[in-house]
Formats: sequence, C-alpha cells, structure tokens
Amino acid sequence: MNPDQLADRVARTMFAAEGTGAAWGLTIEEVREDYARVSMVVRADMLNGHGFAHGGMIFALADSAFAYVCNGANHASMAAQASIVFLDKVGEGETLIAEAEEVAREGRAGVTRVAVVAGDGRTVAEFTGYSRTLGGTIID
Amino acid sequence: MNPDQLADRVARTMFAAEGTGAAWGLTIEEVREDYARVSMVVRADMLNGHGFAHGGMIFALADSAFAYVCNGANHASMAAQASIVFLDKVGEGETLIAEAEEVAREGRAGVTRVAVVAGDGRTVAEFTGYSRTLGGTIID
Amino acid sequence: MNPDQLADRVARTMFAAEGTGAAWGLTIEEVREDYARVSMVVRADMLNGHGFAHGGMIFALADSAFAYVCNGANHASMAAQASIVFLDKVGEGETLIAEAEEVAREGRAGVTRVAVVAGDGRTVAEFTGYSRTLGGTIID
Amino acid sequence: MNPDQLADRVARTMFAAEGTGAAWGLTIEEVREDYARVSMVVRADMLNGHGFAHGGMIFALADSAFAYVCNGANHASMAAQASIVFLDKVGEGETLIAEAEEVAREGRAGVTRVAVVAGDGRTVAEFTGYSRTLGGTIID
Repeated sequence: MNPDQLADRVARTMFAAEGTGAAWGLTIEEVREDYARVSMVVRADMLNGHGFAHGGMIFALADSAFAYVCNGANHASMAAQASIVFLDKVGEGETLIAEAEEVAREGRAGVTRVAVVAGDGRTVAEFTGYSRTLGGTIID
Repeated sequence: MNPDQLADRVARTMFAAEGTGAAWGLTIEEVREDYARVSMVVRADMLNGHGFAHGGMIFALADSAFAYVCNGANHASMAAQASIVFLDKVGEGETLIAEAEEVAREGRAGVTRVAVVAGDGRTVAEFTGYSRTLGGTIID
Repeated sequence: MNPDQLADRVARTMFAAEGTGAAWGLTIEEVREDYARVSMVVRADMLNGHGFAHGGMIFALADSAFAYVCNGANHASMAAQASIVFLDKVGEGETLIAEAEEVAREGRAGVTRVAVVAGDGRTVAEFTGYSRTLGGTIID
Repeated sequence: MNPDQLADRVARTMFAAEGTGAAWGLTIEEVREDYARVSMVVRADMLNGHGFAHGGMIFALADSAFAYVCNGANHASMAAQASIVFLDKVGEGETLIAEAEEVAREGRAGVTRVAVVAGDGRTVAEFTGYSRTLGGTIID
C-alpha cells in the first residue's frame, strides 16, 4: 500500500467501527495522504432552535474529516483541541462538504485545517484541529 | 418575569423548537441568568472509531449549553466562533454535564465558558464560545 | 513552602529569567496556587496602526499570566495552544490587568482561563490557554 | 491601483502608523491581495523564562501579518478572535516568517490562516484569525 491507499483504508476502517458515521449519514468522498473530503446532508434532527443547522453538527462533520486525516498514516491519534469560525447559516436539506488537510506536523503534534462548504459553493465554517498521536495503530 | 425566569423560558422555548435536543437526548438541568447546565448520556451512536464519545458530540453538548446562555436575555444570538480542549476519553453510558456561564459581554459580543464534566466528576473538556447578537428575540 | 508560596516563587524566578517581563513593563501583582494577576501599562510602542493597543500585546500579557500559572506547581510546562476573543479597544496609557486561573488539569494537560480587564473595569479580552508539562522543574 | 497594489499600500501605511512594527523589528517581505509575508528576528528581549521565543511574540508576529491581510482591501477591520497552536521552540537570533492568507470572507467576517516558519523551514506555529470590518478605510 502507498500512503494514499493506507490513508483511505484507515478512514474506511474508522468509519466502519464508529457509531457516528452512520448516525450522521456521512459519506467519505475521498481520502488520500494528509487529506479527506467528507459530506453530509442536513436533516431536521440536526436543526437548532432558529431552524438552521446546529453548530454542533457543523463541527461534528469537520471533526470527523479531521479524525480521518490525523489518523491517516496509521498512527492512532486524538483531537487535543479544535477551533471553529461559523460564517453562514445552513438550511435543512443542504449538503455540507468538509475538506480537510493536514498542514503541519512536529513530533506527536499535528495541525489540520478544514473548510466546510455548502453545495452551492459558499464557505460556512473554517475549522482548525490540533491532534496528538497516542501510540498504537488503527489497522494491523 | 425576572431575568432568571426569562432565561429559563428562552432555553425551554429553544429546546422545544430544535431538532437536536430530542435527537441527542439532552436534559436541561438548570437555567438562570447567564448560566445553563445541560446533560446527555453517551450512546453507541455517539462513539468514534476508537470506541469513545466522538469529539463532535462533546462539542455539540457544550455548544447547546452555550446557545441557551447567550440567547438567555431574549436577544437572538448566534455562535460566531468556538474553541474546545479535549482532556479525557468518555465511554458509552457515561453521563456528561455541560455547565455554561457567560463571563463577558460588550456591545453585540459575548463570551461563554463551558466545562464538560463526566458523572464521576472528572473534567473531560473545556469550551469557550464567542457569540454575537443578531437583532430579534426568541420569545414574544 | 506551601503551594501558594511555591507558585509565587516560580513566577518570580521566571520573571527574573525572561527578557519579556522587563521589556513589556509587566508587574506581577499576585501569584498563588493556580492563580496569577499581572498588569502592564500600554505604551506608544505597543499601538497598532489604528492607534489602539495591538492585539499581539494584549495576547502577550495574557500569555505571560498563563505561563506563570501553568508552571506554578514547579512542573515545567509549555503553551501548546491558546485562543483569545478581543472585546474592546484599549488606548495608550491605559493599565491592563490579566487575571489567570487554572480551571482543569488531566495528566500532562492543563487549561487556564485569563480575563484581561482595563483599569476602569471593562473586560477587553478573554483568553484560554492549553498547556502541557514537559518534565523538569523551574526551581530546584 | 489594482488589488495587489492596494493591499501593499495599505500594509505599508499601517506599518508607518503603528508603534509595534518598528518596536518588534518587523519586515514586510511581500503583500498582495489576500496575502502577506512578514518576518522578524528573535531578540533577547523576546525570550521567555525557558530561554525560547515567548509565545506572545510568535502570536504578535502572526497577528501583524493577519492585520495587514484583513485590512488589505482598504476596509478597516479588527481582529475579533484568534487561535494559535505552538509546534516548536524558537531560539534567540532565529528569523521567523509569518505567511498569511485570507481563506474565507462572508459579509463583515473574514478568516485568515497564518503559518509561522523558522529560517530553516520548520513550522513553529499555526494561527487562525477571525476579523470583522468596522466601516471606514485605511487610506483615502
């Protein structure tokens, strides 16, 4: 396996093992070394009291893409910290696409940038994740 | 209504209007002026690929408590930005309690601190939310 | 030495060793276990192009208070990540006070909250710092 | 003036007006539309108690590059919030280069990503700034 194939297999292994991917209707669009693109359709059970996608679900989508990226070299990792800027409202039925890329790595630490874009191309959130490796692997 | 009663009524109105509160099994434990405490039990459909509560769900719980607080004076508000530090893993079946308090307000901006604590008392995450008022109200 | 005395001695040792405390005119007002209060007067060489205190200096003051707190138990620590919300402008000659408190600790990780307040009592920034211990001590 | 020339002129106008650029020895390496690269040499008066560049100075450099970028279309803007991940230590005499790019804009809000790199090419920090326009301009 080359690094792109490894990253893809790690992400699909994580997706199969997790409860959230199916619960949230995530689709892994593409995964390669240091990169993942994941989509989700906003459902009624994801709306806040104002009738828009809850920030928690926008974060959850971005955080999932981040998790696939930071574990992608098959070094088990965890999110230590994350920040998100919310830029626009999202309505029910819209598709959200999280595009994640690891931009830096130093020792056990890594930084992944994620843009969350709606189906019409507007950016709705910008996320930054800080990961640390734990020791251990995802796949044998 | 005094400010504590108003904050409580705003939070319960938001909860009734949102899809997420019921979907995530949130319980509003207490709401008063500038304060909310909200709990959630971690279910199998909230677990990540490592078998622990997904960071997106821990964030979503904290973000919900933040939303009840920053709208609590009945000025419709939105999360503009949020940050979270993840401190410990959380297993299936554990109860998480998010305790949120608004610590600063200036013009349209507000800052709310949220501690997420497990049922055994250990702190599992620290969240900071930055809100901006939109104009408009939650209840008439 | 009790924990309050130790924290105070660590902070004063760090202050004596660092270039920044003197360069920025910092005053250590009070340090005790898990707590530090540090002040600074805004000078002309700290102003941005709009004529207000540069965000970098407001951050630097908060980050200094954070450093005194997260090293205060004499476990050498470093800032791994920090976030700041800027709430109000600050003019030349104003005194800024950073009040820092460690709110959580788990293993090597710690979270410190810092409020930056002007001399007239208004909150101008809210800062959150995430620290990790390195091994080693500050004082023998 | 085209957008690249405008951005350059805005940054140089801000630099001339601010106290910090000269105080910190900043050099504007390149500015164009939505982009700035700024450098600084780490001096003894910028070191923390561990003998490395103070996080406040690393932030201040990144925040300056962010300010040049978010004001670059000549719409006066302020930093509302910023986050930074610290990845490596920096010694006295090292040159730091902050490379800033605006990655999203929506209404009054903008998001700028900044990488801080040392002279030997290693990434020492990743910064994200959230700006809001104020009304008004930098140059006539």
